[in-house]
Amino acid sequence: MASWTKRKVKGVLLDISGVLFESGAGVPIDGSVEAVQRLKAAGLAVRFCTNETTMTRGMLTEKLHVLGFSMSEQEIFPPIPAICKVLQKRNLRPHLLINPKVAPDFDGVDTSDPNCVILGDATTEFNYHNLNKAFQALVAMKEPVLFSLGMGRFYREQGELLLDVGPFTKALEFAADVKAEVVGKPSQTFFTSVLEDMNVDADNVVMVGDDIVSDVGGAQSCGMLGIQVRTGKFRPQDEEHPTVKPDAFADNLLAAVDLILEASK
Amino acid sequence: MASWTKRKVKGVLLDISGVLFESGAGVPIDGSVEAVQRLKAAGLAVRFCTNETTMTRGMLTEKLHVLGFSMSEQEIFPPIPAICKVLQKRNLRPHLLINPKVAPDFDGVDTSDPNCVILGDATTEFNYHNLNKAFQALVAMKEPVLFSLGMGRFYREQGELLLDVGPFTKALEFAADVKAEVVGKPSQTFFTSVLEDMNVDADNVVMVGDDIVSDVGGAQSCGMLGIQVRTGKFRPQDEEHPTVKPDAFADNLLAAVDLILEASK
Repeated sequence: MASWTKRKVKGVLLDISGVLFESGAGVPIDGSVEAVQRLKAAGLAVRFCTNETTMTRGMLTEKLHVLGFSMSEQEIFPPIPAICKVLQKRNLRPHLLINPKVAPDFDGVDTSDPNCVILGDATTEFNYHNLNKAFQALVAMKEPVLFSLGMGRFYREQGELLLDVGPFTKALEFAADVKAEVVGKPSQTFFTSVLEDMNVDADNVVMVGDDIVSDVGGAQSCGMLGIQVRTGKFRPQDEEHPTVKPDAFADNLLAAVDLILEASK
Repeated sequence: MASWTKRKVKGVLLDISGVLFESGAGVPIDGSVEAVQRLKAAGLAVRFCTNETTMTRGMLTEKLHVLGFSMSEQEIFPPIPAICKVLQKRNLRPHLLINPKVAPDFDGVDTSDPNCVILGDATTEFNYHNLNKAFQALVAMKEPVLFSLGMGRFYREQGELLLDVGPFTKALEFAADVKAEVVGKPSQTFFTSVLEDMNVDADNVVMVGDDIVSDVGGAQSCGMLGIQVRTGKFRPQDEEHPTVKPDAFADNLLAAVDLILEASK
């Protein structure tokens, strides 16, 4: 039996930014390419579960290939393909506040006379003008519907901590007195759709992430194990987090994979 | 006895923007100059209680005089003089995210090596860069201290609803996992300081405002009466607000003053 869990691990969800590579950096985190190879070689089901909304799914796959990782586009689960399904199903026309780079992923989506607002990681597009426009769109709706692509607080890019989409969602929730529907981590619906694709019970799956609330806490809430890596947006105070207790900490993905393989036998 | 309250009114707090004039407009709201005169002529104590942080106290007084109102600068209570007292008392050095126009009100305040962050109504200065800088300042502190100058959700300016400081405070609270201290309405400390200056019991004071939560709800929480005017940021759904029930509604300040004078006899 593994030292850190009594469960048998059969499937692995990996966060991408901050786990495979540092956001903004042009190289993988030491050992992470090898780590992914070892998981696959051991026959474990692996999916890449990300709230990345500054690149299209295609751009993200290409970036990972250039960095030396092997995976297909279908193994990568970002929020945009998921929200596009929701729009179709519920007949919704969005007002978009997103990164211009991912606009192609919304090609063909009807944005006239919007009946919902979608917030992605718009980075520099999060300015007073655009936030006012999104707010005005919301309050003009009979029943305001707000979607947030993930609920991350911040991430680290080139050594700097930068605000993620979550804080801006909180701003609009407060301004328009609405509760956002989260599409992406840590939403249960989102995690469940990935688990279904893997066809492995939550009990036998571990999520590896750098975000203690969204990755580790979110996965644990769905019945999975959660390993916190000390890369990406990890901060020392995460070791004593008031509400989330990871099943294990690991210095990086390679060290996390040692723990996972130990629990997969 | 007045038709809307059993209490006797001896003092009045008036919100400024949206009650005396529409934000952004160059003229007073119909009848509001006369309304203030009538309150003063009746011998009631009157104070102007505002979360305005886009003008210095001096600029605001001058603007009101130009519009035809009579009051002294000392009768106007904006958040900046209050926060400056707090900084001095607690030996705090702020990182400021404020409207450049009010920078003179912070002249002489030490902003080196900041140990707190102050958010005012920074309007177009609320951009991704400045919000990141405020966030980074907060997380760099051993014990992050965040002050918000008011907690308004939005206001109306030239027919447009625009985000106030509150949503941005919620954004930074979530990002840095801190709770802001509000200086301004609806903070009890702030209302209490104005009541002390008036020397009238809360029981005998009525607040007139256009913001149902911050003005009316805030005043009621402090034991005052609250009248909601149907000007400024008022929206029809405020008539059925889920938590705040104003003691009375009035079409504008002049109509509110009729109610107040009725209750002052």
